[in-house]
Amino acid sequence: NNYFKIAVLPGDGIGPEVVSESVKILKVIGEVFQYNFQFTYGLMGAEAIFQTGDPLPEQTLDICKESDAVLFGAIGDPAFDNNPDAKVRPEQGLLKLRKELGLFANIRPLKTYSSLIEKSPLKREIIEGADIQIFRELVSGIYFGEKFTDEEGSYAYDVCKYSREDIIPIVHMAFQEAQKRKKKLTLIDKANVLDTSRLWRKICKEIAQEYPEVQLDFMFVDNAAMQLILNPKQFDVIVTENMFGDIISDEASVIGGSIGLLPSASIGNENALFEPIHGSYPQAKGKGIANPVASILSTAMMLDHLKLNQAADKLRESVEHAIENKYVTVDLNAKQSYSTSEVGDFIADYI
Amino acid sequence: NNYFKIAVLPGDGIGPEVVSESVKILKVIGEVFQYNFQFTYGLMGAEAIFQTGDPLPEQTLDICKESDAVLFGAIGDPAFDNNPDAKVRPEQGLLKLRKELGLFANIRPLKTYSSLIEKSPLKREIIEGADIQIFRELVSGIYFGEKFTDEEGSYAYDVCKYSREDIIPIVHMAFQEAQKRKKKLTLIDKANVLDTSRLWRKICKEIAQEYPEVQLDFMFVDNAAMQLILNPKQFDVIVTENMFGDIISDEASVIGGSIGLLPSASIGNENALFEPIHGSYPQAKGKGIANPVASILSTAMMLDHLKLNQAADKLRESVEHAIENKYVTVDLNAKQSYSTSEVGDFIADYI
Ligand SMILES: CC(C)[C@H](C(=O)O)[C@@H](O)C(=O)O
Ligand SMILES: CC(C)[C@H](C(=O)O)[C@@H](O)C(=O)O
Repeated sequence: NNYFKIAVLPGDGIGPEVVSESVKILKVIGEVFQYNFQFTYGLMGAEAIFQTGDPLPEQTLDICKESDAVLFGAIGDPAFDNNPDAKVRPEQGLLKLRKELGLFANIRPLKTYSSLIEKSPLKREIIEGADIQIFRELVSGIYFGEKFTDEEGSYAYDVCKYSREDIIPIVHMAFQEAQKRKKKLTLIDKANVLDTSRLWRKICKEIAQEYPEVQLDFMFVDNAAMQLILNPKQFDVIVTENMFGDIISDEASVIGGSIGLLPSASIGNENALFEPIHGSYPQAKGKGIANPVASILSTAMMLDHLKLNQAADKLRESVEHAIENKYVTVDLNAKQSYSTSEVGDFIADYI
Repeated sequence: NNYFKIAVLPGDGIGPEVVSESVKILKVIGEVFQYNFQFTYGLMGAEAIFQTGDPLPEQTLDICKESDAVLFGAIGDPAFDNNPDAKVRPEQGLLKLRKELGLFANIRPLKTYSSLIEKSPLKREIIEGADIQIFRELVSGIYFGEKFTDEEGSYAYDVCKYSREDIIPIVHMAFQEAQKRKKKLTLIDKANVLDTSRLWRKICKEIAQEYPEVQLDFMFVDNAAMQLILNPKQFDVIVTENMFGDIISDEASVIGGSIGLLPSASIGNENALFEPIHGSYPQAKGKGIANPVASILSTAMMLDHLKLNQAADKLRESVEHAIENKYVTVDLNAKQSYSTSEVGDFIADYI
């Protein structure tokens, strides 16, 4: 089978610019490797609210459900961030999509590019050789628990809830990955305070029995936030709940040298979505300066997921070739930089 | 008035070792400055559980309530961390104490010592000159909301709840501090997902009207976790809710060069508690290698709180003198190091 239905959700801010580079490159890959990618576009986020009133229109959801993979840009708009009273919000679209597609595992690989190591705020000896894979639970926890604000705005609450079924699949996934790597898995939690964290800890211990070769460690989230900076090389695979994963994985992006490089995959049993870890970066919207690499490397993760590993490897090689040759956007080289589409072209040409 | 009742809670792990240096130094300060400090000791944490079954015995609470200030060491013991089923836990003692004393604001100043700047995992140009004050809400949020685990251990939840009254006092405190400093306040929240965060944002905006000179910014916690490392100098005063504050302030400790140096104050309307931000560090217990500086600088914050500013300044000067002269524990100088009590003696002698 070499026919693939790709749902494309450009989203907000710089999303459309970076995703269009990914699509451009996929078209080239299709020609070179003889794959037939069919692209169907959908609205999501602030753009979708402006045009339809709904951050995730029914039609977009249908397109995604029928797809072999979803390519997503970014979400969020200052018009909503600065208005705590807005009832409909762009992020609801992404959260609903994750839930509806059952994308329970958000996977973020973190590595350092040798030519970019000097860009990191961290010292070379701290990050050189660091190689971490983060598994963040994505469809439960405080993101999806009951929420409430009373009419007078005098109090509010958010419930963090986890059941066994929410935790088991991602823990297995993380153990399996650890088994393929350095055989070390760290659960990040706050088990000295939270009941949900103690449930995570318990289940991890149970599941560890099935992976006797993997060493399972526990780390409190406050300590982990510090250890990730003090000594990132101590980590191999990390598994954690939704909110801690959100914080920890953005923090860990500094290890990679630039958030503009980092891809992510969100995996479910039936569907999968691929997106850069950077946000919509509204200040850069429409300026042609956004770094397309995170979206392009997310596309490589998508190719892996579709079992097109040869194409995925070629794509990663092309990205490395661009970076090593300093064919990069302004965030990575202020002195001589290229536009979003120039970088995309350079990578596409190499393929 | 120069008579002060100090409650001393050594706690667990290295707590007793570092707190005893603080008491030693306070005695010297008492002689030099003619203050009469009366010390009353109380049990708390794992030690309290082992001896009484209760992590915060009634007697300890009474001692603290009657005191002018509480000096606290550290809490936590691996015997409990590794047992998710333990019903009574050391941390409950500290959490209950914070609640009972109404210590709503945890204040953590972060600065870089020029002689230690090379110890940080961050590059000199990133941290040199950084000066941040974090205000963490300490008696509400997910720490104190309803918690539940069902009997079979099939699900659990933790509720994060905030009311206006929980938020207003600490926000005022943070604005007042910002007014005395660079007039910049950043609220760290997750207002794109959480109702409680939107309530924080709303209240901060309202209160900002009363402090027209202070610039109020908002930052999502995931982005903040990244920005603290990329560019810590952009921050002046930070205010945030309990759980985010726990994570962010431990992370931010890397800016200071060593967690062994960083003090904190927990302030309420009637009481105040002073503790190092490091934990009980059980691996180092009883070895005489623990760094007493964080506890000693917490003692300086206590002296400020008691309006003994001259003594506080002298104490800080003595600590700086010790550090500049490399009279430090092994964490700060592996080549030539001094024991916990040697460092304490050196600082006491200088006073
Ligand atoms: C946009 C936001 C809702 C989202 C999240 O918090 O999950 C983002 O930060 C992410 O990490 O994908
Ligand atoms: C020991 C623990 C309960 C505590 C907390 O999470 O508040 C500690 O990490 C702290 O920051 O003082």
